[in-house]
Amino acid sequence: MSIVMHDLAGADPALRFSPYCWRTRFALAHKGLPVETLPWRFNDKAAIAYSGQGRVPVIRDEATVVADSWAIAEHLEDHYPTPSLFGNATARAHARFINAWADAVMMGGIARLIVHDIFDVIDPGDRDYFRQSREARFGMTLEAVQADRETRVEAFRESLLPLRVVLGRQAWLGGAAPSYADCIIAGTLMWPRCCSRFAVLAEDDPIAAWFEHMLDQYGGLARAAVQP
Amino acid sequence: MSIVMHDLAGADPALRFSPYCWRTRFALAHKGLPVETLPWRFNDKAAIAYSGQGRVPVIRDEATVVADSWAIAEHLEDHYPTPSLFGNATARAHARFINAWADAVMMGGIARLIVHDIFDVIDPGDRDYFRQSREARFGMTLEAVQADRETRVEAFRESLLPLRVVLGRQAWLGGAAPSYADCIIAGTLMWPRCCSRFAVLAEDDPIAAWFEHMLDQYGGLARAAVQP
Repeated sequence: MSIVMHDLAGADPALRFSPYCWRTRFALAHKGLPVETLPWRFNDKAAIAYSGQGRVPVIRDEATVVADSWAIAEHLEDHYPTPSLFGNATARAHARFINAWADAVMMGGIARLIVHDIFDVIDPGDRDYFRQSREARFGMTLEAVQADRETRVEAFRESLLPLRVVLGRQAWLGGAAPSYADCIIAGTLMWPRCCSRFAVLAEDDPIAAWFEHMLDQYGGLARAAVQP
Repeated sequence: MSIVMHDLAGADPALRFSPYCWRTRFALAHKGLPVETLPWRFNDKAAIAYSGQGRVPVIRDEATVVADSWAIAEHLEDHYPTPSLFGNATARAHARFINAWADAVMMGGIARLIVHDIFDVIDPGDRDYFRQSREARFGMTLEAVQADRETRVEAFRESLLPLRVVLGRQAWLGGAAPSYADCIIAGTLMWPRCCSRFAVLAEDDPIAAWFEHMLDQYGGLARAAVQP
């Protein structure tokens, strides 16, 4: 029985853009594990209530239910050791820093550039929830959050300097081959790719070149994803 | 023959405050390798000319000369495999991200809080060079760079959120035991500790609690360091 995953979808059920769900999709692909994804909307809390919380990704792997992309990566590594996402406990511990950095720096930075674009692609039934919760978080309208992004994007790109330095010295964040660190960052970048036409990266950025390689990994899984 | 290391010193030759030299001191201690440190000043370019560049740390290990704290960590790991700093190639690749993040985020942030304090402790012969080079870098006087730090320190502390998240979930950046990632961050924090009395961390910050443990590691090496 293949793994089942609840995956955030847009108004178009084929549009899958959650950065956390994409971290998990990459991790599953890295392991070579087939997955059946079930489109999920913010309002489908009942569909994942059995996981004991209200956010995706949630996976069902036989009798085991796991929520949260980091916890899912650990579950996959512990139950399907090869190909490895980490290789050893130290690499796993270090990847947790990269995960926390992506959450603290990339997620907020990207949200401020595309939050209204997300609103435009989500299911109509999700829009009131999304607008209210995000406007409360940012303390302004979605339109105001996204305003002036053409000038603000430079500061976001600058905040990615540590990635740029590393990818100038090694092919993958995992070194000679992709690791879960690559899944984290590429998963995060699938968010703007799959719900916006705004370029969060400059074309000549080494991070963009690495991301192109990640799009081609795993049989072109990410390259094939529906875009708006 | 023990390893010899050129180590930045203040007017007091016992005062050692370079964040890059401290990364190397921690790495050497982690390996249990004895080291003879030679006090070095910014103006002693001739003393390290044999390394082919002008910055410390520089180590001499028998016939091998290595400059740059990251290159030294790799040299130590490759020549003295245990106790390991990384454990595997993936952990090493992930640590490079943490190193780049410390350089991009921590170094600049700390410099803006303590650069005049550094000026106050360095050797009189280094002061003209230091003032000119740093004022050119920041585009303002050392006094202006450091101004208003009591209010600006909050933004610096906020920028350390990824560290705080990780240290809320595991004892060390390396997981159950320190790795080179711990050497990188603790080494960076030895910089303000050893040339300033300004508290870059809040007392109740989990990062401060972890740093206290790092001060006690390796026989209390860092705890024993001379402070201004």
